[in-house]
Amino acid sequence: MKHIFGHKNPDTDSICSAIAYADFLNKQNIDAKAFALGSLNKETQFVLEYFGIEAPEQIDKLPAGTEVILVDHNEEKQSIDKIKDLDIVEIIDHHNLKIETNKPISVLFKPVGSTCTIIAEEKYFKNNVELTKPIAGILLSALISDTLFFHSPTTTDIDKVVAEKLSKIAEVENLEEFSLKLFNAKSDLGDISVEKLIKLDYKTYDFKDGTYSIGVMETTNAKFGLDKKEDILIKLKELKESEDLSGIFFTIIDILNEESYTFTSGDTEDALFTKLFSAVEKNNALYVDKLISRKKQIVPVFEKM
Amino acid sequence: MKHIFGHKNPDTDSICSAIAYADFLNKQNIDAKAFALGSLNKETQFVLEYFGIEAPEQIDKLPAGTEVILVDHNEEKQSIDKIKDLDIVEIIDHHNLKIETNKPISVLFKPVGSTCTIIAEEKYFKNNVELTKPIAGILLSALISDTLFFHSPTTTDIDKVVAEKLSKIAEVENLEEFSLKLFNAKSDLGDISVEKLIKLDYKTYDFKDGTYSIGVMETTNAKFGLDKKEDILIKLKELKESEDLSGIFFTIIDILNEESYTFTSGDTEDALFTKLFSAVEKNNALYVDKLISRKKQIVPVFEKM
Repeated sequence: MKHIFGHKNPDTDSICSAIAYADFLNKQNIDAKAFALGSLNKETQFVLEYFGIEAPEQIDKLPAGTEVILVDHNEEKQSIDKIKDLDIVEIIDHHNLKIETNKPISVLFKPVGSTCTIIAEEKYFKNNVELTKPIAGILLSALISDTLFFHSPTTTDIDKVVAEKLSKIAEVENLEEFSLKLFNAKSDLGDISVEKLIKLDYKTYDFKDGTYSIGVMETTNAKFGLDKKEDILIKLKELKESEDLSGIFFTIIDILNEESYTFTSGDTEDALFTKLFSAVEKNNALYVDKLISRKKQIVPVFEKM
Repeated sequence: MKHIFGHKNPDTDSICSAIAYADFLNKQNIDAKAFALGSLNKETQFVLEYFGIEAPEQIDKLPAGTEVILVDHNEEKQSIDKIKDLDIVEIIDHHNLKIETNKPISVLFKPVGSTCTIIAEEKYFKNNVELTKPIAGILLSALISDTLFFHSPTTTDIDKVVAEKLSKIAEVENLEEFSLKLFNAKSDLGDISVEKLIKLDYKTYDFKDGTYSIGVMETTNAKFGLDKKEDILIKLKELKESEDLSGIFFTIIDILNEESYTFTSGDTEDALFTKLFSAVEKNNALYVDKLISRKKQIVPVFEKM
């Protein structure tokens, strides 16, 4: 059986693309199952409950040689431990290409807003495979989540066309209203610990001058994060030490106002971020207007550094 | 305009996939054109003449920032010089994944017999884009050439189904007869120089213990290569020096008998090849029965070394 999973600290796109692609393959009589590399966030839980789909089983390791399909990621650091011992047979993603293989495999990347956009368009629609209401619903939710309801600069025309088709099948009549529900679920963090907050959507990158982590908190309630500044700064410094990193950036993205506030693990990182993104101080954080996409706006700048 | 090209020392699959994909994109009103990274071999010349298609312009460099689409290759060493300065916007290939990108791009890899199989199936057929007789003809030719008329272990069921569909559109009634014409054109090397013979289909790889080149000569006339043994050995030693390589392997693949004869650039390489492939001496060369695919049988063994 092929094990399908997205990245660690899974977001809605990672979970829903794994579930939908397993459904697609099962319909071609291919034995495949979705898994999660970590617990589901509130938004993803809301989505799966809303459309009546069971949460995938969580795993953190697999026996050597297991056939796996990577969705929504391809960097080793973001994948399951000891990925090199597994048999990667396919990758579907919308991030930078960062993996090498020792045999020819199936690879499908498109520079679109979500992995679910690719699965909907290139798998279901192009192959005329029937899409049920729940699967269309979770594909749509992930698309809306990853593109921040089409506000992220990662959004393409294809995302909008696919969302239109999916919302009909999913019977989501008012997409804006549904998006607000989604973002409120995303922003409902309850009594989350500071470490969990930082790790909500946290990815590690090997840049030229060192290994950095970048956590983002996409929210309709930036104040929730800003109010925890002191605890966040302490935890970022601790994590930098314990994970042996060159630095950590934690960016609170205000989805509705399309702006962001960043905290970092130290003065050097503060200075670096300020220089790279022309940040200004606002609400005691490094404020940048319109900086809302880690993938399209933050990571490329670090890579060119 | 997007520049589309296959690997250096282009083979029929590299040339035909570039031409066909340019045709496909032009039909979607996307400005694109095929180019060749080197002169065409006899087989490719035969194919283009047979189906009445003009040979693509040869290039060896492009201005920095030019938008390019790589087909049938993705390793830097096999691509145009200074590829890092160009803007790679898309890759279609059936080899191992060996490239990193600093932005999300379109990538389509399938573990099938030829890049032309992917272009036919995933581009023309799945999108219901009309395929003319000449384009179907060159796609079919490249598929037959790369799979050695379905004898290569790289052949999949998809290749056979696609070839069937293409031969109808290309009006090739007797596929076996056409394949023999193709292989005879491939084998008609006239008064080729020994260096050109070695470089007919020559690729350079970074393996763990050094950089090696592997040239293959796919032929219905192995004797033509075997008779040049002394000159080939001298030239292999020269090239190893001048190209600063750890070694060179030149494998004469007898297409019809499905066997191969290898010459190398020195005793160490002879011993290595003999050990890795359990070669025996026959016709004064390193003989291996059924060893006919560089991609599927030779390169993977070196990579595991």
